[in-house]
Amino acid sequence: MDVLLTGFEPFAGERTNPSWDAVDAVRPDGYRLTKLRLPCVFGESIAAVREALAVRRYDVVVCVGQAGGRVGVTPERVAVNLDDARIPDNAGAQPVDEPVAPDGPAAYFTGLPVKACVAALEAEGIPASVSHTAGTFVCNHVFYGLMHLVATEHPGVRGGFVHVPFSPEQAEGRDLPSLPVATTARALELIVRTALTTSTDLRTTAGALH
Amino acid sequence: MDVLLTGFEPFAGERTNPSWDAVDAVRPDGYRLTKLRLPCVFGESIAAVREALAVRRYDVVVCVGQAGGRVGVTPERVAVNLDDARIPDNAGAQPVDEPVAPDGPAAYFTGLPVKACVAALEAEGIPASVSHTAGTFVCNHVFYGLMHLVATEHPGVRGGFVHVPFSPEQAEGRDLPSLPVATTARALELIVRTALTTSTDLRTTAGALH
Amino acid sequence: MDVLLTGFEPFAGERTNPSWDAVDAVRPDGYRLTKLRLPCVFGESIAAVREALAVRRYDVVVCVGQAGGRVGVTPERVAVNLDDARIPDNAGAQPVDEPVAPDGPAAYFTGLPVKACVAALEAEGIPASVSHTAGTFVCNHVFYGLMHLVATEHPGVRGGFVHVPFSPEQAEGRDLPSLPVATTARALELIVRTALTTSTDLRTTAGALH
Amino acid sequence: MDVLLTGFEPFAGERTNPSWDAVDAVRPDGYRLTKLRLPCVFGESIAAVREALAVRRYDVVVCVGQAGGRVGVTPERVAVNLDDARIPDNAGAQPVDEPVAPDGPAAYFTGLPVKACVAALEAEGIPASVSHTAGTFVCNHVFYGLMHLVATEHPGVRGGFVHVPFSPEQAEGRDLPSLPVATTARALELIVRTALTTSTDLRTTAGALH
Repeated sequence: MDVLLTGFEPFAGERTNPSWDAVDAVRPDGYRLTKLRLPCVFGESIAAVREALAVRRYDVVVCVGQAGGRVGVTPERVAVNLDDARIPDNAGAQPVDEPVAPDGPAAYFTGLPVKACVAALEAEGIPASVSHTAGTFVCNHVFYGLMHLVATEHPGVRGGFVHVPFSPEQAEGRDLPSLPVATTARALELIVRTALTTSTDLRTTAGALH
Repeated sequence: MDVLLTGFEPFAGERTNPSWDAVDAVRPDGYRLTKLRLPCVFGESIAAVREALAVRRYDVVVCVGQAGGRVGVTPERVAVNLDDARIPDNAGAQPVDEPVAPDGPAAYFTGLPVKACVAALEAEGIPASVSHTAGTFVCNHVFYGLMHLVATEHPGVRGGFVHVPFSPEQAEGRDLPSLPVATTARALELIVRTALTTSTDLRTTAGALH
Repeated sequence: MDVLLTGFEPFAGERTNPSWDAVDAVRPDGYRLTKLRLPCVFGESIAAVREALAVRRYDVVVCVGQAGGRVGVTPERVAVNLDDARIPDNAGAQPVDEPVAPDGPAAYFTGLPVKACVAALEAEGIPASVSHTAGTFVCNHVFYGLMHLVATEHPGVRGGFVHVPFSPEQAEGRDLPSLPVATTARALELIVRTALTTSTDLRTTAGALH
Repeated sequence: MDVLLTGFEPFAGERTNPSWDAVDAVRPDGYRLTKLRLPCVFGESIAAVREALAVRRYDVVVCVGQAGGRVGVTPERVAVNLDDARIPDNAGAQPVDEPVAPDGPAAYFTGLPVKACVAALEAEGIPASVSHTAGTFVCNHVFYGLMHLVATEHPGVRGGFVHVPFSPEQAEGRDLPSLPVATTARALELIVRTALTTSTDLRTTAGALH
């Protein structure tokens, strides 16, 4: 089995990005693992994913991004066809109300069994929940772009996106929740394993009232 | 011009629902206004909207719901084709991972000029922001259902959904943000007026990093 | 009856301070009102209060400060004998672990009937709660200094401190709660009236679990 | 060296209390350690501490309590002479505006080097900050009671209080921050060691703006 994990370079003035640090620390267990560090740049980021998918056939692709302020690891359920950048990306671009793919649908649902993933994390005491928005910045851009690639060029690839909290070092002095990078890496290992072994997601609720 | 505003009955143990209380307090200004109180019930709620749209041709339809814990009035940008109920609705139903419309797309974007709406509210000092998730409970169900009706049966109707904060009475003793119902009603008046008079939305960013 | 209300100048990069803007908007009702704008500076701020108390005998003195992020108006219950500045004050000073008054006790309780004040605000739908910490910056410095002046030089003066939320303009784009300055001003009017007319505070709980 | 660590039984409907679970997991390293599980009951709780102090001479006493919703381990800086119970304690008592010790001062500062403690935790990547309020429930009751015992009967004992976050199991489904019990236990070990080895606290700021 072949797995691709991507994380991002730091952005928004941070010195690290726990998404990459955690991906970097993941140890594969019974599968072949490729790791890719993405620039936090519209266009370039998804181009790097596209290139990776062109080179090798992956069974599972999980892109990972930082969601500072969240309390746990959050598999994302839905990607929307919208770039609306609150701040410039790392190349200075700030698209407003542009589609990720002009010819794509309004949204894609994830290909990951997000409820089984959350259950696997909670079983090890790692805080986790399903999220219903990945924002409208580069994270959602890559998530939507990945699902569009799967839908149009790489059918059968199981793809999705996971947001992760700040590391404790980032959260210091800010009264924000955090997770040690080693815990986040363990969460990613569990998510990959769940994606490789769970064909049908759990039918438990993980909904949000609003 | 004809406008339909809907609010919800109380749910989740609350004794009031500021969405209906605010709708009830809206005074139309130069347009004909119909108000509808929806049950907080999957199916029945959107059926009531469908019925209202069958009886009269509306120019603007804004459905409003309560989002306890939010700090301001939040026009929703995207409705997703997913019912996933964390709690039972007021009729005891708790759908999990059901589509709102089996034949519908994954999502619809709102028909409201959400950025112009937020700007209009902020100009009067009312806290507001664009939201990118309406959850997966009855609010999103009605929002998606409305946009599906517009897309399939009522082309040209300008429809959308707005989440509103708790009233101060609801927030008492809970350390949660709130907005007086009169302020929320004023916000809805501004949103309706903006929807009636703004053909192209502002090109300012209202994005979310995650 | 004579009342002194103080508010602060802006600090921490803000362009306004709702504590002063609200004090400025208060209209006295049956009492003589003096308003004082304090510098956000250790030492100078409490010196200005001391000077005011030397000139005129006040029945009630309420100092008001900004607490960005709080959801309501929060009468403070306890002032501590500690300056510990997370950031420099407006004169560049940043005392760490200094007492406000070297010869003072560890803390003073407020002289205001804080529970009756909260009840008066809630009766008008204004979000409010009792707070048990005024921090360790200039706000607490003035609060402790005021109570020390009352205890040592001005017995009988009813003094206390009230923290107020951001204005909507300050909160814009930050997803933080806010209160219109007019509402905050109304809250201060109610607090002054309550302080002038309530000799014994309510015996209702306003405690915090932690 | 002799050390006393106390934790609480569960309260407020929780099935566990991470304060006791963490204390229970602490392994002493070069000192003699006594552990005590306190009832979450006004009066009884501090009586148990008083009894323990009568039996043996301790160098360091750290009482630990749960603060659900906090993001890190928070050594408390100040205890106030006030019982004001938002909810009944585990014996059904709900004191309102009673002093902990009728003859005691308004407050005591902690005897722990709280800034050195926070620095020690952050050096190991454990989220931590100094808190300036322990609330007005049983936690503050025990904290104030302990400091009063030290001040009046057990001079020289180094005493203090530490609040700890929910465990991940408690936080599940509530979107609240948490810390694994093993991490909290490690934090308590570091706090004890710091208390045993640090005579003068660090002169770094750990202040709060409000």
